[in-house]
Amino acid sequence: MPGYTINRDDYLTRLRRIEGQVRGLQRMIEEDKYCIDVLTQITSVTSALRSVGLGLLDEHVRHCVMDAANSSTEAGNDKIDEAIGAIERLLRA
Amino acid sequence: MPGYTINRDDYLTRLRRIEGQVRGLQRMIEEDKYCIDVLTQITSVTSALRSVGLGLLDEHVRHCVMDAANSSTEAGNDKIDEAIGAIERLLRA
Amino acid sequence: MPGYTINRDDYLTRLRRIEGQVRGLQRMIEEDKYCIDVLTQITSVTSALRSVGLGLLDEHVRHCVMDAANSSTEAGNDKIDEAIGAIERLLRA
Amino acid sequence: MPGYTINRDDYLTRLRRIEGQVRGLQRMIEEDKYCIDVLTQITSVTSALRSVGLGLLDEHVRHCVMDAANSSTEAGNDKIDEAIGAIERLLRA
Repeated sequence: MPGYTINRDDYLTRLRRIEGQVRGLQRMIEEDKYCIDVLTQITSVTSALRSVGLGLLDEHVRHCVMDAANSSTEAGNDKIDEAIGAIERLLRA
Repeated sequence: MPGYTINRDDYLTRLRRIEGQVRGLQRMIEEDKYCIDVLTQITSVTSALRSVGLGLLDEHVRHCVMDAANSSTEAGNDKIDEAIGAIERLLRA
Repeated sequence: MPGYTINRDDYLTRLRRIEGQVRGLQRMIEEDKYCIDVLTQITSVTSALRSVGLGLLDEHVRHCVMDAANSSTEAGNDKIDEAIGAIERLLRA
Repeated sequence: MPGYTINRDDYLTRLRRIEGQVRGLQRMIEEDKYCIDVLTQITSVTSALRSVGLGLLDEHVRHCVMDAANSSTEAGNDKIDEAIGAIERLLRA
């Protein structure tokens, strides 16, 4: 079971709020809101998504990586490679 | 009228796709998908949002900032201050 | 003349401080300092560099882009394309 | 001993190159180089620093975090908290 199942409801709540924010962005565009206000809202959604991503990463390292490391050093190293790759992609997103 | 009204339909299409991606993220969490796959999808949504943000910024500078600068240097400078602030927030989001 | 010549000494002072911080990073590695402390220092240098970059961008838009826009709409648009490209690269660095 | 001592010479070589790039930036400012070219070079230095940071993080998780986790779950969790905090700061730098 993925580590995040512990906080699954919390992630779902946050993602539903993010979905609402994205619909809010559509309304802002439809209503010709000022560009800079739309940009500020985009920044806020990006930040909320990043925060969900960091939460998932935290639980992933704490559970999946640790479980793999407990089964074998090689399995742990494979999981770490994978996690570092995900961090790198998040940094450059 | 905001500069982005030129590409309004394009922005709306992209934001609806992003909304669909955020709903896809909720399904991934509900179905206990693997953390790293969820993270990869988050990276993809973040990147799509940034790209909408950069498009808005481009049109904002091209239209609002330029119009303000044509009316007075001071008005142009105020708009540039505001745009640089928005870029800074986007960088740190 | 580039717009940044106005604050040239300020940029030079900041870049010399950044150079000192990078030498400090080398010392930290030589002295086997704790990884997380090295990472915190890297974050601080990255942030200082970004801040110099945003300052240059600000002056670039305020001077070069505006001068180009005053000579012709086409020249202004070319400069804006170039500036947005630089912001995009900075975002993904 | 910190995990990075394995690749210590590699990090030192990369940091010396980064120091040289920062001195190159000072020369570019002194010689009034074009803003966008200076920005491109700043992006390149930022990217090189991030890459050193990710390398350190990789080794930190692979060694320090794993060693702590092997001694006790609580020690492992403390190290993970600390590592996630460092990633978060790097993301917002």
